[in-house]
Amino acid sequence: MKDPNILYQHGTLALLVPGLFEGTQTVGELLKHGDTGIGTLTGLDGELMILNGTVYQFSAAGQIREVASTEKVPFANVHYLDDHSMGQLENLDLKNFKKSVTEKMQTENLFYSVRVKGTFKLMHTRAVLPQKPPYPTLTETAAKQCEYQNKNVTGTLIGYFCPDLYAGAVSPGFHLHFLSDDHRTGGHILNLELDHGELYLQQFTDFNLNLPIENSEFLKQKFNNGEIIDSIMEAEN
Amino acid sequence: MKDPNILYQHGTLALLVPGLFEGTQTVGELLKHGDTGIGTLTGLDGELMILNGTVYQFSAAGQIREVASTEKVPFANVHYLDDHSMGQLENLDLKNFKKSVTEKMQTENLFYSVRVKGTFKLMHTRAVLPQKPPYPTLTETAAKQCEYQNKNVTGTLIGYFCPDLYAGAVSPGFHLHFLSDDHRTGGHILNLELDHGELYLQQFTDFNLNLPIENSEFLKQKFNNGEIIDSIMEAEN
Repeated sequence: MKDPNILYQHGTLALLVPGLFEGTQTVGELLKHGDTGIGTLTGLDGELMILNGTVYQFSAAGQIREVASTEKVPFANVHYLDDHSMGQLENLDLKNFKKSVTEKMQTENLFYSVRVKGTFKLMHTRAVLPQKPPYPTLTETAAKQCEYQNKNVTGTLIGYFCPDLYAGAVSPGFHLHFLSDDHRTGGHILNLELDHGELYLQQFTDFNLNLPIENSEFLKQKFNNGEIIDSIMEAEN
Repeated sequence: MKDPNILYQHGTLALLVPGLFEGTQTVGELLKHGDTGIGTLTGLDGELMILNGTVYQFSAAGQIREVASTEKVPFANVHYLDDHSMGQLENLDLKNFKKSVTEKMQTENLFYSVRVKGTFKLMHTRAVLPQKPPYPTLTETAAKQCEYQNKNVTGTLIGYFCPDLYAGAVSPGFHLHFLSDDHRTGGHILNLELDHGELYLQQFTDFNLNLPIENSEFLKQKFNNGEIIDSIMEAEN
């Protein structure tokens, strides 16, 4: 059943913190739960943008490609697109963009998808380099990320707002990726300056957390809540 | 679809902390997501035990009754029962009971249901008094709970183990309720001494958090994560 009220997540964000980067769900299985979203592949190999049921990877080398259904994700969010236009946004830096989106949301206590089709004066993204086992930590991996700055680029920003209460399971606040219309650039957004674009929001009643029950490394990991949230804030922002 | 892999939760435990005790889902709707579980009613009126699709309330006055499908819950967990016997347990106080159950679980990083059919030398439970708006906080309400100590009582312990990582959305660790076979006592377990009983566990792949999107008090509430978890630990243990 394609239920647009559900935000589906495979993996808990905390598992990336100590370096549990092994893919635990195929992209094919992931797409049974939504047609739109973000994520990453085994080894934290690049940043995923999922639009209209197609999964695109932006690699640290700066390449975009379509991901096969047999490839695996350690972490991803998807939903069935049924968002609503909240009007045009213009001339916003990242801080004011987040402020404007938050004002359009009904509350900060629910999960939302955030989508903008627009033109950006600046789109500053990153993609992390693929890691091999034994995996380093999330913070070590993010410290070696490749960054890209594109000017005057048109495309789709796609991501989520998650309430602070669920930090650890998710990256609290906004988690935003980008894919240019010409499929030449994308990635995890570090900074932006929006020229103009249309904002679409989708509010979820349900957050469905799907855990990798067959991954022995995950099952035996000891998580320290305080350290995890500090590391997520450092690596994801 | 009756999927035994899903632990369903209506409400986030954090909302009880500041006193958002208004029921936001009918029992009829809740039972579309499971036949077994625990919860509470509007005003934190007693403790719910859900067995074989029937919802029982143990009130602060010490009465058990069947709850109507039109009554509402601010917070409840349910699942479709498909648990597995993990063998007999004998002569355990609460601390050693939790230790034994934890040893039978594969991991502390997944959600489990815990069920014991057995005889208890001591079953020490509580039920909170029903509150009226404007509601007090969870801590204030729990401070005025009614406690019951029954000796040599036979019945069903039902509840959940939730990983610490999700504290705030859930009560971390074990959250256990009880219903006696003769339906004369029950409630939220504060202490126990198990004489003997059979332990059943059910491991979940998915945790489905359903939020009360139409409750304006919830939507506008400001949650402070640290205070919430401290209050949950004080009120629920």
